[in-house]
Order: sequence, then structure tokens, then C-alpha cells
Amino acid sequence: MSESATPTFPKHLLDFRDWSRPQVESLLETAQMMQEVLSRPVKKVPALTGFTVATVFFEPSTRTRLSFELAARRMSADVVSFASATSSTTKGETYKDTLRTLDQMGIDAYILRVDAAGVCHQAFGWLQKPIINAGDGWRAHPTQALLDAFTLREKLGSLEGKKIAIVGDILHSRVARSNAELLPMLGASVVACGPATLLPGHLIGASLTTNLKEALSEADAVMVLRLQKERMDKGLLPSLPEYIAGYQVTEERLRWAKPQAPLLHPGPMNRDVELEGSLADTPRSLVERQVANGQAVRMAVLYHLLVGKKS
Amino acid sequence: MSESATPTFPKHLLDFRDWSRPQVESLLETAQMMQEVLSRPVKKVPALTGFTVATVFFEPSTRTRLSFELAARRMSADVVSFASATSSTTKGETYKDTLRTLDQMGIDAYILRVDAAGVCHQAFGWLQKPIINAGDGWRAHPTQALLDAFTLREKLGSLEGKKIAIVGDILHSRVARSNAELLPMLGASVVACGPATLLPGHLIGASLTTNLKEALSEADAVMVLRLQKERMDKGLLPSLPEYIAGYQVTEERLRWAKPQAPLLHPGPMNRDVELEGSLADTPRSLVERQVANGQAVRMAVLYHLLVGKKS
Amino acid sequence: MSESATPTFPKHLLDFRDWSRPQVESLLETAQMMQEVLSRPVKKVPALTGFTVATVFFEPSTRTRLSFELAARRMSADVVSFASATSSTTKGETYKDTLRTLDQMGIDAYILRVDAAGVCHQAFGWLQKPIINAGDGWRAHPTQALLDAFTLREKLGSLEGKKIAIVGDILHSRVARSNAELLPMLGASVVACGPATLLPGHLIGASLTTNLKEALSEADAVMVLRLQKERMDKGLLPSLPEYIAGYQVTEERLRWAKPQAPLLHPGPMNRDVELEGSLADTPRSLVERQVANGQAVRMAVLYHLLVGKKS
Repeated sequence: MSESATPTFPKHLLDFRDWSRPQVESLLETAQMMQEVLSRPVKKVPALTGFTVATVFFEPSTRTRLSFELAARRMSADVVSFASATSSTTKGETYKDTLRTLDQMGIDAYILRVDAAGVCHQAFGWLQKPIINAGDGWRAHPTQALLDAFTLREKLGSLEGKKIAIVGDILHSRVARSNAELLPMLGASVVACGPATLLPGHLIGASLTTNLKEALSEADAVMVLRLQKERMDKGLLPSLPEYIAGYQVTEERLRWAKPQAPLLHPGPMNRDVELEGSLADTPRSLVERQVANGQAVRMAVLYHLLVGKKS
Repeated sequence: MSESATPTFPKHLLDFRDWSRPQVESLLETAQMMQEVLSRPVKKVPALTGFTVATVFFEPSTRTRLSFELAARRMSADVVSFASATSSTTKGETYKDTLRTLDQMGIDAYILRVDAAGVCHQAFGWLQKPIINAGDGWRAHPTQALLDAFTLREKLGSLEGKKIAIVGDILHSRVARSNAELLPMLGASVVACGPATLLPGHLIGASLTTNLKEALSEADAVMVLRLQKERMDKGLLPSLPEYIAGYQVTEERLRWAKPQAPLLHPGPMNRDVELEGSLADTPRSLVERQVANGQAVRMAVLYHLLVGKKS
Repeated sequence: MSESATPTFPKHLLDFRDWSRPQVESLLETAQMMQEVLSRPVKKVPALTGFTVATVFFEPSTRTRLSFELAARRMSADVVSFASATSSTTKGETYKDTLRTLDQMGIDAYILRVDAAGVCHQAFGWLQKPIINAGDGWRAHPTQALLDAFTLREKLGSLEGKKIAIVGDILHSRVARSNAELLPMLGASVVACGPATLLPGHLIGASLTTNLKEALSEADAVMVLRLQKERMDKGLLPSLPEYIAGYQVTEERLRWAKPQAPLLHPGPMNRDVELEGSLADTPRSLVERQVANGQAVRMAVLYHLLVGKKS
């Protein structure tokens, strides 16, 4: 690729609206390089020396926070963590005031998890600094989609023409939304499946069905979402046994998909709820690989946003 | 300044009782140098390499803790955090035993926040190590006063002969007490104002008034304190509307002060409670500048206590 | 010692079942060297540069976590912390899934505290990475026993033929169990003493008695355990005054032991419950020394597990 063709990258990863396919491809190539770093005995490079990255989590998520924190530290950035539990937002301070206050402390990039869609976009307006959306309500979780795409390509090669089934609570899933945005950009088709009460009216980038057999049929890969048990209390689910009867992904039902179609799950899993527990321990499960690739992808994102892609 | 005139610094910042004006001036000069460091792309110097600093917070405060943590890390110190929520103090261990235990781990300096006045002084006796009071009950919060002084001098030049009004819940405010101690040392006069139930009997270093107009009249700067809503439950406040009617700092009331008198607030703000919310977004608000200067001031304090001032 | 005689070390410290006396001796020698590092002004060596160590605490313990964290950082390792309070285990994820997920992030060694015996052993099977048991239910807390042994040898010289009395709630104490395993390996005899309701049926490595005088008689050192007040609610203790009357270690009762027999306590102490409070401040108390030595011992353990002993 000549230098003039090098894509200029957005200064944020809020969702994929401002990202083109070549930019995403370039990011995934960088992730490939980062994966090579992670395979070394000493998994550390000086790429982000002197930068300070803040994880700002208004909603708890240890695994996502740790993944970002390690990604940043492995590129020698300093990391500080701000979590809402001990924050002044509980005392009524606005998101904006909290973030602008943090920003006066000289943070170079933000990894932001919030409980409401749109806050990350606003935050970019308030701060004018690189912002990575680490999950905003039901709307988007773009690094999860990137690591899913990376993991799928590692397994399937190109995603061109591939059918990816996403099964579970689609309605409340930012993972489903971000994958429905990203995977078609890379050539795949997405079918999202769940009981009617857990499906949105429509989902851009995906077709919707309540028919699990239809969703899994000839699928090249199956992504199972976590069933949040608290939804049932709100009357969105008739009962756990009924969900399991209709939508649990089992070894038997996986036969509807292509032979050896791999299985993904964003974690943490409820074994024997959304999927037959033992499936997660079979070779077709990519669940652990997703976590490992999450490191590489997040290193790539931080690198692109802070340092920029070298052509 | 000749070497013989170099002030010797106390080995703690508990309050300003053991600090002289030349020492404070020297500290603020160092803060000026630190601010220059913070304006660089790589905001890191090796000044405290090999030192380990502990933040020990028996009372939660994310923003203050982060400000100190970043200050320490930017001088290449290691930082460990001890917070009471997960500590054994909840199991009945005394402050003294907790601190002496930590001290056996080879901590070089302590940043201590406690809920009771006097504990920081005792801690210095127990540990004989540099201790920075990051807030002890109602009594003192000296780095806040230093950053306020630094911010005021940056805006107003010398504080000699300047009138600073502090408005709000004076009774429970360590910020008010520390400013009343420090600002007069630098030549300013301080007027503290609030409803009678939120004023102490007397406040060393400040005159007291319940008359907001009198307090703001000809003020060179106005510092607004956070109104802690929980005070009302204790019957110290008649009602929020009455407080707002009598003491909210509004654009209109600010006309009593000198033209363009700047506005300070230690944060986090309750917009439209203790101050008219929109005021915080006008150029006369120094609220964000205070946070930025807090970094520089805390770097200077750590540097003075751990390494000592080079003449 | 010739190179061929260098013991090969287990790749974990779960308890001492897989450790031989020469291995433990070698570890304590390394701790001696680490103690020398800790006496320097700059307490930092590059031994573990590039390694990432995770503290994974499913049960809170700030002081133990900090001791390990500082030990790792002083050898230049990166440290990440995973605590259950904010983890997905509360959402029903299994220990295994949580640990295997973390492991995908490229952690080099785990410091694990869990509330159930056996989990650390399982974890070694799941992860095949160096694991240090930082306390698993009532069963073992091997680094505490190592620091106790180190501290005792520092004071008493060889432990050969020495009598060590452990007093308190033996039944629920992993500290007692680990010491009863380790100290006899180093030549000492251990007597464990407490009220009948707080003694196990038997304790490998120790003799048991309800008679405090018998336990302390001619003891070379006395280790007092923390009395967990919550035991009383469960009816295991008649009352605090009765416990104190029968088992509190007092200056007077210490006369039964050898003159100047030192006093140990794993902390945090309940002063005037399990021991006469003022005793902890006398020269025979090694309580603070234990904490300091804990650093050196934990550095040695991390070094042995991650880098291996150089002969």
C-alpha cells in the first residue's frame, strides 16, 4: 500500500460509524503484529511510553478493565483506574463534570464504560481526546466486535460470504449490536436469534428470527450471548426452563450449523443456561481464544488512537 | 537566594503550622516548574525513581487519590493504594496498628485521608516518615489550599492585600479551614460566609459573616464550597430552597464582587445548588484550572518531602 | 553446595507437601538476600522485568495483597489485581472459567486467595502456571508460615529442637495448619492450644492441648492467633470474657515460657482479646518484624517460582 493510500484514522472508537473497511482491516493487521508481541516471553514494548491512559468505568467489569489495562501496560503506558463505586457521581456530579475534571489531570486517552448509550459520543465532544467505548448500555462494545472478527478470521479466513449466527438476548446486547455493525462490513452476513421478547424491532446489519434452527442452519460460526438472569424478573422471559428448551445452544442443535462451525461467547458464561456447558470445553469453542485476542486487539486500538498507524 | 538562606522544610504537610511563608513560596515555585513538566508531551520525570508512595484513604475520594497517584507516578515513584473499604480497620484494628503494619513494607511517604482530625499528626509520630494530609475530618486539607493559592496567584498575581470570599458550609469544611490558614500567610484577607447554622464560632485567619453581600463586596475572588446535602437531614439547614435563596452564588450576586473576580470551587460541584450552574462554564470559573494545578502542587509537595528542595 | 545438588523447585506454593527441607532452606536463603535488597535506599531490582503477576483475591485481604504486590513490584514485575467484589463470580461464573479467562491475558504467575480449601490445587491443574496460595479457607497460608519461620530463625537461630506454642482459634486457622506443616520440617516441635471448641480433632505436625500452661511451658516462642469474633455468634465460644480468662496471652502467663521467648501474631491484632494489648509494644513482640520479613519471603517465593534458583 502506498503512503498516500494510508487511511487516516478516527481519533475515537465509539462504534464503527466513522470507520471504513480499510481502516478496520489495517487495525486488524496491527492486532496481528501485537499478537506476535504477546507470544514472546517478555510481552512488553515501549510503544506508549510516557502516555497515561485512564479506564473510567461507571459500570463494573473486571475482565474488560483488566484486558485494557494489560494492553496499555504492555505498551508501557501508565494506567489509572476510575470506578464509579467510589466516585463522586454517586454524589450527583454529572458525567461531564467528572470527565472534565479527570481530563485536567493530563490523561491522554480514555477507556469508557457507561450505562447509557450516547455518553461516549458526548464524552468525545467534551474532551477532544482519544476515547474507546468499552460498552455503553445496550448500544455498542466495539472492541468486543473487533476481537470477535479477529478470532473468526483467524479460524475461518476471510469473512466474505460467511454466515454468523448470534443467539440469545439480542435486545439488550451491545455485543450483538456491535457485531451486526462490524461483521457485515467485513463481508459476513449476520442472523440474530432469540425469543420474541428478547429481540429488538430491527437490528441494522442483521436479519432477525425466533427460529433457532433457521438461524443455525448452515452457519459458519455461532456466537452465544450471556443470558442475564435478571431479565426474567422483569417479565421478559417466561422461565429459565422454557428459555433452555427453546434456545440453549447444544451439541445436538449445533449439527444444524456447518460441520465444526466454531462457537464464540463474550463471557462470562452461564454454563448450561445459554449453552450446553460441556461445549465450552470442546475444540470448537473459541471462548478462551477470544480473550487472548482481546489483548492484541486492544493494544492495536490504543496504538492507532494514540500514536497513529505507520504506513 | 544564597544556599544559607534556603529554608529547611518540615518532613510533613499536616497543615501550615510548621510551614513559614518562605517555605510555602518555595513550594509554589517548585509547583511552577512541575507545571512546565506537565505541559510537555511526555509528562514524566525520573525525580522519585525507586521511592514507594502509599495512598491510605480511610475515607473514599477518587479524584483526590487519583491526583496524588498521578503526581507520584509522573515523578516515576511506585504507588500503592490502601482503602478502608477492604481494610482490616473494619475488623477493629486501630489506625496505629494498620499504619505501622504498612510501614513495615517499606513505604517512603504516606498520603493520608482520615475521617477524624488529629490522626495525621499522630501518624507522623508513629511512623516518622513524610506524611501528606489529604483531608482529616473537618480540620485541614492543605494541598487543596496550596492549589487554590497557586491558582489565585496565577490569576491575580500577588495575593498581598487581596480579599478572598469563601461561601458555603464553612462549619464542616476542611477546605475553608486550610485556606483561612494559608491565604493570610500569603498576604490575603479571607471572609467566610454562610448561614448561621453552617458557620463555626470562630475561624482563625478569617472573618465570618452571614451576609453574602458583605462577603462578596469588593472581593478579588470567590471560592464556593460544596453543600453536602446530608447536612440537611441533620437539621442544620432549613431547606434547600432557603439555602439557594440566601446563599447560592449567582451571576447577579457576583456583581457585588470586583469585575471579573474569578470563581473557585474544590469540586465536585452541585450545579444550581451552591452556585448557579452555568457560571462554572464561564471564563471566570477556575474550577478546571484548579484540578490541573492540583497535579503540579502535589508533585511539588512530594518532591519537597521526599527529595528536599535544591537551592 | 555443588550444582548437581541444587534442588529442583515445585512450580507452585500450595502448601509444603511438594517441598523438601533443602528446598525450603534454599528459599529462606534467597529471602535473606531479598532482605538485604529491602534495606537499601532504592528497594528495587530488575529480577522480574517483563513478567506479569496477578493477585486474584476471592476473599478480601488488603495487607496480604499489598505485601505481595510490593514484593512483585520491587522485582520490577507488572502486577494486576483481580478482586471478587467487582468480579463476575458474583454473577455465577465458576472459579475455573474466571481463572482460565484471566490466563488468556498472559499472566505469568498467580497469587490466589480463595474461601475454600482445594481450589488452589485445582487452579494449578487448570492453569499449569506458578501459583502461590495466599490463603485457602482453613487449610493453608504457606507464605505466612514461611515468614514466621524466617522471623523465628532470625531471632532464635536454628529451629532444631525448639518448642513453638500456637495459641487461639486453631480449628479455623490456616496459619496454624501451615505452621504445623512447616516448622517441624525445620526441626521444631509445635504445640497448638485453645478451648476445646476451637481445636480440631487432630492437627498433623502438632500436639494439641486445651491447657495453656502446658502449651506455654518452656516454649521458645509463642504465636498468638487472631480471635475472629464472628465465631462466637455461631456458638463456638461461650463468651469473650471466658475466652480472655482462659486463653488470653498475658505478660504474666508468658512467664511460663522461656525467658524472653518472642511473641508472634499474623495480624491484624485484637488488642486485649487474644493478647494483652501492651505486649505487642514490648521488645519481645516480633509482630512488625513479621510484616517486614513477609516482603522478603514473598519476593523469594516469586523469584523461585518464576525465574528459578541459581545455584
